[in-house]
Amino acid sequence: MDFKKTYILKSNELKEKKVFRDAVHDYIHVNHLIIWQLINSEQMQRLRRIKQLGGTYQVFPTSEHSRFTHSLGVYEVIRKMLEVECLKTTLSDYDKLCVMCAALLHDIGHGPFSHSFEYVFHNNHEEMTIRMILEDSEIHQILSHLYFDLPKDVASIISKTHSNSLLIQMVSSQLDGDRMDYLLRDSYMSGTTYGHFDMSRLLRTMRVYNGKIVFKESGVHAIENYILARYHMYWQVYYHPVSRSYEHLLGCIFLRVKDLYIHHYSFKTNIHYLLPFFKEDISVADYTNLDESVLEYYFREFINEDDEILSDLSYRFLNRHLFKYCELIDENHFKHIKDTASNHGFDPRYYIFTDTQKQVPYKHYHITGELSEIEVLTDKGLKPLPQVSEIVDAIVKSDRYKEDHKVFFPKEIRDEI
Amino acid sequence: MDFKKTYILKSNELKEKKVFRDAVHDYIHVNHLIIWQLINSEQMQRLRRIKQLGGTYQVFPTSEHSRFTHSLGVYEVIRKMLEVECLKTTLSDYDKLCVMCAALLHDIGHGPFSHSFEYVFHNNHEEMTIRMILEDSEIHQILSHLYFDLPKDVASIISKTHSNSLLIQMVSSQLDGDRMDYLLRDSYMSGTTYGHFDMSRLLRTMRVYNGKIVFKESGVHAIENYILARYHMYWQVYYHPVSRSYEHLLGCIFLRVKDLYIHHYSFKTNIHYLLPFFKEDISVADYTNLDESVLEYYFREFINEDDEILSDLSYRFLNRHLFKYCELIDENHFKHIKDTASNHGFDPRYYIFTDTQKQVPYKHYHITGELSEIEVLTDKGLKPLPQVSEIVDAIVKSDRYKEDHKVFFPKEIRDEI
Amino acid sequence: MDFKKTYILKSNELKEKKVFRDAVHDYIHVNHLIIWQLINSEQMQRLRRIKQLGGTYQVFPTSEHSRFTHSLGVYEVIRKMLEVECLKTTLSDYDKLCVMCAALLHDIGHGPFSHSFEYVFHNNHEEMTIRMILEDSEIHQILSHLYFDLPKDVASIISKTHSNSLLIQMVSSQLDGDRMDYLLRDSYMSGTTYGHFDMSRLLRTMRVYNGKIVFKESGVHAIENYILARYHMYWQVYYHPVSRSYEHLLGCIFLRVKDLYIHHYSFKTNIHYLLPFFKEDISVADYTNLDESVLEYYFREFINEDDEILSDLSYRFLNRHLFKYCELIDENHFKHIKDTASNHGFDPRYYIFTDTQKQVPYKHYHITGELSEIEVLTDKGLKPLPQVSEIVDAIVKSDRYKEDHKVFFPKEIRDEI
Amino acid sequence: MDFKKTYILKSNELKEKKVFRDAVHDYIHVNHLIIWQLINSEQMQRLRRIKQLGGTYQVFPTSEHSRFTHSLGVYEVIRKMLEVECLKTTLSDYDKLCVMCAALLHDIGHGPFSHSFEYVFHNNHEEMTIRMILEDSEIHQILSHLYFDLPKDVASIISKTHSNSLLIQMVSSQLDGDRMDYLLRDSYMSGTTYGHFDMSRLLRTMRVYNGKIVFKESGVHAIENYILARYHMYWQVYYHPVSRSYEHLLGCIFLRVKDLYIHHYSFKTNIHYLLPFFKEDISVADYTNLDESVLEYYFREFINEDDEILSDLSYRFLNRHLFKYCELIDENHFKHIKDTASNHGFDPRYYIFTDTQKQVPYKHYHITGELSEIEVLTDKGLKPLPQVSEIVDAIVKSDRYKEDHKVFFPKEIRDEI
Repeated sequence: MDFKKTYILKSNELKEKKVFRDAVHDYIHVNHLIIWQLINSEQMQRLRRIKQLGGTYQVFPTSEHSRFTHSLGVYEVIRKMLEVECLKTTLSDYDKLCVMCAALLHDIGHGPFSHSFEYVFHNNHEEMTIRMILEDSEIHQILSHLYFDLPKDVASIISKTHSNSLLIQMVSSQLDGDRMDYLLRDSYMSGTTYGHFDMSRLLRTMRVYNGKIVFKESGVHAIENYILARYHMYWQVYYHPVSRSYEHLLGCIFLRVKDLYIHHYSFKTNIHYLLPFFKEDISVADYTNLDESVLEYYFREFINEDDEILSDLSYRFLNRHLFKYCELIDENHFKHIKDTASNHGFDPRYYIFTDTQKQVPYKHYHITGELSEIEVLTDKGLKPLPQVSEIVDAIVKSDRYKEDHKVFFPKEIRDEI
Repeated sequence: MDFKKTYILKSNELKEKKVFRDAVHDYIHVNHLIIWQLINSEQMQRLRRIKQLGGTYQVFPTSEHSRFTHSLGVYEVIRKMLEVECLKTTLSDYDKLCVMCAALLHDIGHGPFSHSFEYVFHNNHEEMTIRMILEDSEIHQILSHLYFDLPKDVASIISKTHSNSLLIQMVSSQLDGDRMDYLLRDSYMSGTTYGHFDMSRLLRTMRVYNGKIVFKESGVHAIENYILARYHMYWQVYYHPVSRSYEHLLGCIFLRVKDLYIHHYSFKTNIHYLLPFFKEDISVADYTNLDESVLEYYFREFINEDDEILSDLSYRFLNRHLFKYCELIDENHFKHIKDTASNHGFDPRYYIFTDTQKQVPYKHYHITGELSEIEVLTDKGLKPLPQVSEIVDAIVKSDRYKEDHKVFFPKEIRDEI
Repeated sequence: MDFKKTYILKSNELKEKKVFRDAVHDYIHVNHLIIWQLINSEQMQRLRRIKQLGGTYQVFPTSEHSRFTHSLGVYEVIRKMLEVECLKTTLSDYDKLCVMCAALLHDIGHGPFSHSFEYVFHNNHEEMTIRMILEDSEIHQILSHLYFDLPKDVASIISKTHSNSLLIQMVSSQLDGDRMDYLLRDSYMSGTTYGHFDMSRLLRTMRVYNGKIVFKESGVHAIENYILARYHMYWQVYYHPVSRSYEHLLGCIFLRVKDLYIHHYSFKTNIHYLLPFFKEDISVADYTNLDESVLEYYFREFINEDDEILSDLSYRFLNRHLFKYCELIDENHFKHIKDTASNHGFDPRYYIFTDTQKQVPYKHYHITGELSEIEVLTDKGLKPLPQVSEIVDAIVKSDRYKEDHKVFFPKEIRDEI
Repeated sequence: MDFKKTYILKSNELKEKKVFRDAVHDYIHVNHLIIWQLINSEQMQRLRRIKQLGGTYQVFPTSEHSRFTHSLGVYEVIRKMLEVECLKTTLSDYDKLCVMCAALLHDIGHGPFSHSFEYVFHNNHEEMTIRMILEDSEIHQILSHLYFDLPKDVASIISKTHSNSLLIQMVSSQLDGDRMDYLLRDSYMSGTTYGHFDMSRLLRTMRVYNGKIVFKESGVHAIENYILARYHMYWQVYYHPVSRSYEHLLGCIFLRVKDLYIHHYSFKTNIHYLLPFFKEDISVADYTNLDESVLEYYFREFINEDDEILSDLSYRFLNRHLFKYCELIDENHFKHIKDTASNHGFDPRYYIFTDTQKQVPYKHYHITGELSEIEVLTDKGLKPLPQVSEIVDAIVKSDRYKEDHKVFFPKEIRDEI
């Protein structure tokens, strides 16, 4: 059995290794046939039609990259990690292949305009990723064709149930391939410098200790840098109010479509790709069909619908007439805004939105307990990061954190707010 | 009248200047309200849904940028040129505004998947750009609202009929804002180094002489660098056979759709956005509606059409089953390939394509006469570039040029070719 | 009088502006004849022979840049600041010239191997900078030749006694041209990423308010980034123990030379360039003569001196036999090390050194009171940075700070420690 | 014997690999103890005091880097080459170590201000490099201590007499580690973009064929790019007239010193480090003692010499009063300039210099025959580069080449020329 596995893996290695040029990592190296096949699968190619950063390109125009290139990037970071001595010698060839597949596939369950879409339709991209790997799909066929257990083993890394926690840590933890790639990539593509950090040093100081990935003390500054880079990317890029305004507008469209469907509105547009989502009974094939080009096509068609709200919101979306925003002060303030909207004929259910963004650079890992501390290997043994980093310690102990409460409303009522 | 123009221009200047972050030029600076309005127009926002490099992202995955960000970039390069002393002092404020608008708008007439689409439907993006500016459109309204003659003046720069040839040269010549931006941007986004050149030096050595833009002799190496950068980008990126394969597949789909329409095939898909193109009677509004998300939606729907050819080609397109290719040897070779395809049931009209790419680094300007030489200001007066550059001279005089003849065919018949 | 000043300044502007290529800022722009003359002065050219980072190149080999290029860089940052609208319109042409001269000249008083040299010889580079500007020197002649008061006005910016505190703030404050250049430059040259920050955003959010330079709230993340960049450069680069080891070795040589001189040792080497420093009566001309090539020559010669300590230390220095180091635990530990050294025949006065490095990212400004807070312009008026930045607030309030106590000793006794 | 060699090599591998940060290659990886020892040797450390680009920093101020960092860089490029599959599997471990040592040491024979110094004193840096490796020196001891034949084998790679021409080609050929590093490094340090080329692609397309290093056809554009990068670096940076002016001034000083010595002038300065060079009988130890700090010290002392020419030239040198220059027209022109100099009391032997720079991007390799063509592996076998590259072919066939004849003279006589 193990002999067979070894043979299969060996024969899967490409004679002539393949590469893609990548703006962030220079090259993406493909050494296994199965990786090449997965990249060319329907599910992966679909990610080319789903933007990595949703509406962020409304503020940072050059952030037009897709989840596809990010997925290649995560794969490449993991491949690089596997060349670090400690991991190279610790993991079996089979585990290495599993974690590379998991890295490549970790985002395939993402839908178009993920955040707003999931908010309204209650689907879950992580669950869908697992289903795409385990149920019938081109991805599943490719994986199971090579080795019977491969789908299950790859999926269990993504669902964090794999028996080897090293593999889980590589793909999803506080300092994983996913985050490393997206910080570097989003920073490069948006043209901001905030996301820079020293990946080569992080990889160099990585060690395996007691079955966990830890970092040498000489890497602490690079970790601090990475944590701050992430914090700044959140506030400068990901949580930018104009991006959030765009997401809310999208959410309003989805909500209106759903309400109309529930109330048996007769759509001119043939929205057949959306029907499974109303019924909340979605097959992998339904999901694979849905990407941002489909939804953008619908938005264009919705402009011609008789329902004025749907038509108006869709027009705003396609032509970047986004909602305006201001700080949300209190309940009275919110009520005043909703009343003003109503008075102008804007139904607050679709035209007024609030949100709160909160981001602490490090603490929440600790609090949720979901993920363990970043640990540092010192002369005196393993220590949690805040004990070694004065900066992180100060942040963790501080009782202040940055919060942003905003309310979004149509431009037309700005003067009265 | 001139007094009025001055007043209008002055009042159009933004008090609080606006900027966009841009990955290539760091910031895009917007100093005039009208530029801001144009950027937010329907026609410009549509360019966000049209990729700058067509199918190139099939080879260089990170080349996912749109014509929108390129258009911002050209505007920014022109804005920078206008800060060069010689242009700053030569041009009137009105001419400066005209050329910045022309830079921003020069590509709005591009359709989705331009090359293949134009090939089949015989529309012309340059003509459409002019129409979008002169006929009824949001763009036209914005321009004419500021000043009656503005649409005409902006259009005449793009159509190369403006009386001031300096303005034309800035936007379209051998060394213009358009090419400067696309080389830098395509290089940055694709992750190749070929497109790098020293833009700041080119701008620094730019001079106005006898009503033309010329370059100081100290800029000759930067010009050589730029010319070679362009040459290499063509061969390494733009003419990459995989990109061409993708363009041919697209062309085959368009051709099949058109043939089916002519033969009164009854489409299941509601292709109403395409109808004006079959009739070759296209309004600006029809054109504005058409972008890549619409066509991608159609391709997805076409998979379910009864016509097997259309269904098959569309499936290949969406899931990256591109045509394979080889060198085209001669007519016999081509006939053999077509016969093989036929024997396998592939109609050569839709499954076999040839093309020839040819690119000389400098000569063709000279030959077409369409654009005059790049001229260099030396101690001994103005000289054409090849007289001053040994490299360009050698290239111009060489009787060899790089050509690439390829034939493209379905993967299924590869073994027989 | 003011009329005359205006005339002088006007005629000092260069017709053909000059530039230097600079690896960090791309170009250094020289628009005034006097800046060109100052750059070519003896005092500025001498800075080419003094390294910016002392012994850091022993750890980061590519950190070989001089104080000369840093000085050009500070000048360029200040020149860019002066193009920011708020400063452009607030300052007079004369003040602008003064602050550019001050930026260029702020480091001319630095000696060779500054830190160790000043430690032993008690000279003060800030005092010497002022003297070089005010007393007889080529610098002084150039300045006073243009305008009688210029030396005094330039010097008062550097000595922080100028009546316009804006000028002082630009050159020396928590967020000044000096720090901005050295972080970017040292980071670029050493090949570390720690020193990166978003200078263009800092400049864009700079405002003049109540006669002070403050920053818009939208610049807070860039400021946080800058503060952390500085913190990390200190710990990763400037305070690297190998650099400190090199500085201590230098200090030991200087100390031995001084002790020998005091005890009337008869030097074979003709150390006439050092004599004024023993007497602590140094003229500007004496100082101008002393640079790192002179001292390196002496170290080479000292190898042949009869004094064994001087000979040995000099040999170690030139051939990178640096001291080793370990954490300093307590007084007993220190005594043990000194005793061990003595037992091996190493005089602890010249062979054993301790130092303590401490760096808090922000607090010490607040504490020393020497420099006021960085202030942020918000909707609710001016606020000190920690009130607006959760990160800086956490750091300021934390009672932990990073400290590093090390003891340095000859490699020969390592095994006994 | 081979067994012993294997054992020696194995035990020389470092357990904990060492790295240096490098601004160009990110990290320099040191995997062998002997590489670490060589880096820390007297001969290598001396290269820290010799600038890589001589006087170029007079024009490109940030070009202050030393031959030491370049040497580390060449070593690192070679180390990377050795990881390319074709070389990794072809070469023995011993050969790999030899070529890495050769890469690191190839420049140790360079003297201070090489070009001017060799011109006057007729020493030869390549010969000296070989002597430093073969004769008694710290370098020699380190090499021979590891393995008796190592000095000889390393030297034979540098002297191009090694039996394995692959090793020679890696270190000195048209596309070698030396050139690759200096183009990238000089470009990075000077802040010019001319030297950029795609090293990772060159390495990826490298193949071993018939015992030679050749390149796959897919690498031709990267080679063209590299060749043009080199051509442009020569004209824009290395041959810049101001650098040449600086070199001539140096040459004049050396010439005057030599003439004075021959005529038994009595120097006040103790020029003992130069004496062996007058006698043209130089030991390795003499040579190791001589670096740029020694010569700069002498220049400073020479200012006080009684000989007016030596004093004047030295003053000009230290304070950047370089010679001016103009195109050299013909013999009459040259005579006129010399006469003018004489009339002003400037001895033309020391104050008037001409030079001619000539650089063809590719041809001279072909002509000199010294190095064979770059060869390209195509479907139809091995071909010389010009047959595959239209650009290189055009350049090779062109009868024009760039030449630059300049005459240099003191600023004082500029108005009469």
